Amino acid sequence: MSAAPHPTITLTTDFGTSDHFVGVMKGVIAGIAPGARVIDITHEIKPYDILEGAFVIAQAWRYFPKNTIHVVVVDPGVGSARRPILAEASDHFFIAPDNGVLSLIYDAIIDAAAASKAKVKARLKVRVISNPRLMAHDISRTFHGRDIFAPAAAHLARGAQRSKFGELIHDYVRLTGIKPRQVRRGLWHGMILKADRFGNLITNFHIDHFAKIKTRAFELRVGDQRIHRLALTFSEVAIGDLAIVVGSSGYIEIAANQASAATLLGCGAGAEVQLKTH
Amino acid sequence: MSAAPHPTITLTTDFGTSDHFVGVMKGVIAGIAPGARVIDITHEIKPYDILEGAFVIAQAWRYFPKNTIHVVVVDPGVGSARRPILAEASDHFFIAPDNGVLSLIYDAIIDAAAASKAKVKARLKVRVISNPRLMAHDISRTFHGRDIFAPAAAHLARGAQRSKFGELIHDYVRLTGIKPRQVRRGLWHGMILKADRFGNLITNFHIDHFAKIKTRAFELRVGDQRIHRLALTFSEVAIGDLAIVVGSSGYIEIAANQASAATLLGCGAGAEVQLKTH
Amino acid sequence: MSAAPHPTITLTTDFGTSDHFVGVMKGVIAGIAPGARVIDITHEIKPYDILEGAFVIAQAWRYFPKNTIHVVVVDPGVGSARRPILAEASDHFFIAPDNGVLSLIYDAIIDAAAASKAKVKARLKVRVISNPRLMAHDISRTFHGRDIFAPAAAHLARGAQRSKFGELIHDYVRLTGIKPRQVRRGLWHGMILKADRFGNLITNFHIDHFAKIKTRAFELRVGDQRIHRLALTFSEVAIGDLAIVVGSSGYIEIAANQASAATLLGCGAGAEVQLKTH
Repeated sequence: MSAAPHPTITLTTDFGTSDHFVGVMKGVIAGIAPGARVIDITHEIKPYDILEGAFVIAQAWRYFPKNTIHVVVVDPGVGSARRPILAEASDHFFIAPDNGVLSLIYDAIIDAAAASKAKVKARLKVRVISNPRLMAHDISRTFHGRDIFAPAAAHLARGAQRSKFGELIHDYVRLTGIKPRQVRRGLWHGMILKADRFGNLITNFHIDHFAKIKTRAFELRVGDQRIHRLALTFSEVAIGDLAIVVGSSGYIEIAANQASAATLLGCGAGAEVQLKTH
Repeated sequence: MSAAPHPTITLTTDFGTSDHFVGVMKGVIAGIAPGARVIDITHEIKPYDILEGAFVIAQAWRYFPKNTIHVVVVDPGVGSARRPILAEASDHFFIAPDNGVLSLIYDAIIDAAAASKAKVKARLKVRVISNPRLMAHDISRTFHGRDIFAPAAAHLARGAQRSKFGELIHDYVRLTGIKPRQVRRGLWHGMILKADRFGNLITNFHIDHFAKIKTRAFELRVGDQRIHRLALTFSEVAIGDLAIVVGSSGYIEIAANQASAATLLGCGAGAEVQLKTH
Repeated sequence: MSAAPHPTITLTTDFGTSDHFVGVMKGVIAGIAPGARVIDITHEIKPYDILEGAFVIAQAWRYFPKNTIHVVVVDPGVGSARRPILAEASDHFFIAPDNGVLSLIYDAIIDAAAASKAKVKARLKVRVISNPRLMAHDISRTFHGRDIFAPAAAHLARGAQRSKFGELIHDYVRLTGIKPRQVRRGLWHGMILKADRFGNLITNFHIDHFAKIKTRAFELRVGDQRIHRLALTFSEVAIGDLAIVVGSSGYIEIAANQASAATLLGCGAGAEVQLKTH
């Protein structure tokens, strides 16, 4: 990996961009791995919102080149006993606190392994990061992005061996309750994972598991609204009208043409959604 | 162009920075053209506001090196029949939906050609992007930034021939009504193109066309206010007082020293402005 | 310096990210110094807030590699007689308007020189930037970020000699009133320098000067609240409870676990803080 001309490191955090936090992480990386290219995914994860962080990195990572190192820092437990980890899957690397923020990555790898009857352990390797030589000399209690996660990513980009970071672990934290729950035949309860910039409400229903809505009648209920229409594009419905679309990552979204579905419906991340199929 | 050590790609979108959209576009570019440098112009164009996108890229492009590739994605019609295009002018490249977002670039090139009696066709080449080999394999209906515009920019940065992208077209979309309109001798109607971060109100009056205000009395009217003063710098007027200044791109701006003219006047993009010259 | 493979330039401004300003500065840099890497620290300094700019760059610069060039543009006096300057200290470079925005850098260097009985002049060199060959050809009155500061940084990154920029000066502007003031034995008056993204209130009390709070009783008063607890980590106190922590840059912060101390206390930058030690 150290031979790659431009190893890529991505950053996903809840640090915002109004402080020096993100810049300092990049400064640390530049000092250790001057040849690395750093790409921001977002720093606008809602503070402490592990689920939003999990969702954003899960939507993004596949579009980066192999050997990309994804750093995800949404870390309400910074300074406590929670472990920093390095996960390896599908030729990508993930560096994060062990608080479930990588859950949707784990789920995707584990589902794919199950589908092809492969062993999860062969496809997903998670290590604790415990080697002090791959961290800052002085570790603050409140900014592990600077002192642990950025240095780990930079050392990996420079070619440090994975095994040097720490021991493999199998009890990494996985969030539960992210997937839709079947209540009875033809009725599923799910939730809004995120309202995006345009006010599209992204649900946790993935089209791969609900492909039948493409060809058969359905009802998606959110709040008082019932939606029966699947549109191919936003511009297909009248301006301001609601429909569902299959989003660019495969999740079903509630959208309005050139208007914010979140505003129209008055709801956002965490809201319950019901899907009836026939 | 592929020989340039650091081909530059700029991004101007209405995607915001709280989702994974921009990061994913950069991931796609990094995969295709690892040596390209990506520079954000802004991702805070108001959602669907083609005119604001047109204005921002028009203010920015000249300050980049030759052969820079400018990607502009403000795209309310994503997934519909509107065409993706590649425009070439003044040794810069522009990749965008064909919805008028490049209008101010076209206007500048066309005006300059007219002034020097040159043919527009020799100075401005616009192609439809139709070659599927220069796009993602699967094209989503809602995220052409990822599936069409970013790959096109990256392939161009890597050295793909322009002619491979698609046919030249001449019926590209141009917005009308962007320029000031002369109502009678000495009276012009224009508009606010944008309120910037500091609350300066940027009008569509360009100093090149209204140079006389530098030496002769004028009245600029916006809402109930009448402004008669042209200041050289913001700091020249009393704190909180209004004046007009010639902005850094040549457009006349209504400004207040260390205060927001937009707040003081209660207006923003789209508001009418009248200019009387004597 | 020109031999470094990736000279680094950082940007700290109050330009925001919704206009073309920052992108254009990067375009100018790319044109002059194509090999330079540009890292944003932040562009969200409150408009015209020199003290906030001073604080942010002071927190960030040490984490960048040697020879990094830090550009700081918070510039209410743009276009007036205030001078552009190039400062050199601890193998870092700083380019900024001479309005005090580098004061906390100066203070740190001057304090360290005093502590080791070294001459300040040997450790801190400040020059006016006056050489027009290292600026844009046409200098606007309102955007020196583009026309003076970005070109200066890029020329320096390319290897221009420091002495070519202009004469050494000694009357550079230093802000006063930034440090805590001792009112009487055991009682200090200070202030909130900034509320960060998480609502932590960063005071101007640095732990190096108030180390005794680690081992002895104290009272920190802000508004009506009195705080007596020093926590090692945010997660050590109950969710929503207030405590003080030593922040990642050594400043004492008022924090709440997974909640905003700024909201809980209803205060922000500029608020007075009193510290009683025993």
